[in-house]
Amino acid sequence: MSDSGVTQQGDPESRLVKLNIQLPGAPTPFGSYVEALQAGNLLFLSGMLPVIDHRPACVGIIGKQLDTKAGKAATRIAALGALAAIQNQLGTLNRISRVIRLGIFMVAAQDFVDHPKVADGASDLFRDVFGEESMAVRTVIGVASLPLGVPVELEATFELKE
Amino acid sequence: MSDSGVTQQGDPESRLVKLNIQLPGAPTPFGSYVEALQAGNLLFLSGMLPVIDHRPACVGIIGKQLDTKAGKAATRIAALGALAAIQNQLGTLNRISRVIRLGIFMVAAQDFVDHPKVADGASDLFRDVFGEESMAVRTVIGVASLPLGVPVELEATFELKE
Amino acid sequence: MSDSGVTQQGDPESRLVKLNIQLPGAPTPFGSYVEALQAGNLLFLSGMLPVIDHRPACVGIIGKQLDTKAGKAATRIAALGALAAIQNQLGTLNRISRVIRLGIFMVAAQDFVDHPKVADGASDLFRDVFGEESMAVRTVIGVASLPLGVPVELEATFELKE
Repeated sequence: MSDSGVTQQGDPESRLVKLNIQLPGAPTPFGSYVEALQAGNLLFLSGMLPVIDHRPACVGIIGKQLDTKAGKAATRIAALGALAAIQNQLGTLNRISRVIRLGIFMVAAQDFVDHPKVADGASDLFRDVFGEESMAVRTVIGVASLPLGVPVELEATFELKE
Repeated sequence: MSDSGVTQQGDPESRLVKLNIQLPGAPTPFGSYVEALQAGNLLFLSGMLPVIDHRPACVGIIGKQLDTKAGKAATRIAALGALAAIQNQLGTLNRISRVIRLGIFMVAAQDFVDHPKVADGASDLFRDVFGEESMAVRTVIGVASLPLGVPVELEATFELKE
Repeated sequence: MSDSGVTQQGDPESRLVKLNIQLPGAPTPFGSYVEALQAGNLLFLSGMLPVIDHRPACVGIIGKQLDTKAGKAATRIAALGALAAIQNQLGTLNRISRVIRLGIFMVAAQDFVDHPKVADGASDLFRDVFGEESMAVRTVIGVASLPLGVPVELEATFELKE
């Protein structure tokens, strides 16, 4: 199912290089919270927005101003922010053993039904970076509004290597 | 509080039989994710939709096209899918010790307020199958849209027996 | 970042006293669920609503009938309910070591973007009670409707001391 066959070998950091992915700067909070928190062998991230340098990378409603492809691209930006947050917290993606759970929340038109395709913007990236065998459970929901007017927010939980 | 007094004895699989419940086929993914994942002694499920054979069992908005009773019935279908996903992952419901947490997301009219009654479509089923003493925490929310146009989505986390 | 410098010493119960905070009665369920559940060293709470004595403390949409300040105040009431639920479950707040995760769901106008400020109604209270070093990850979302017509719902997970 991956578009990236050759990248299925190696650790997450080397896959990032093979995929020629440049991560944005790590996200910083918009309030009284932290972006990442470790509890036991789990790493919890705050809801990641498609922001670059603390500003929205895009705004609008999926199914209105933004099509499915643009929504998927915004979801991928949020997921790149998640990878940057992990690096910032742990020093390296290679301490992650698995993606456990994704929550993907998108502002979509009332009649929009292709939420799974938008959500794959995050799921596909994590599959390529962490491997086919590391696919997470996920919950995908159309919401009414999101902070800063962005079209999508990504919640993610990861398992750490012992 | 249970409608099913006699079923409060026995294990979950024997309660299913006593309640004369037929489970649907296990759900299959609509994207790059898995339906169930075990981490430590927890079993996480992806957001369960009221689908049968990968197609929506019902569509519409609760409080508009669907009344509270129909919304509760849709929630029960999603919960039956959760039981099927557990059987598919673990072989048997009897490896579950407790329901930990439910997230119930429904597309409801703006002025709808009976979300808890709709959510009980899942909570009541799990109470009957896993027992009164196994009631979970839950979060119940009215959302703007859901994948495939379904009226409800159910997220569930279970604890496994040692 | 705290408004309450002097309260940064002491345990959560003594901070409550110093902050002159009176907790409401512990919340009670609106359906087939429990308000709190302990699993391992985690305490999960059900979605807390801004209710007092099982009735909504306020209703309406943030950005329409309610401004940001009123939304933040409603979020604080939900968070006070969370503290009451913890006391009810554990006997004391002092068994909490950290706040792990917050999910904050608010009914906001379509063009509302100040979700983080509303969410700080919970985050600021927990920071003042549990300490600066105990800030959680959080996910903040604008939803379409909530049970009973309230403007905000708070999901919270805590870590217990060994």
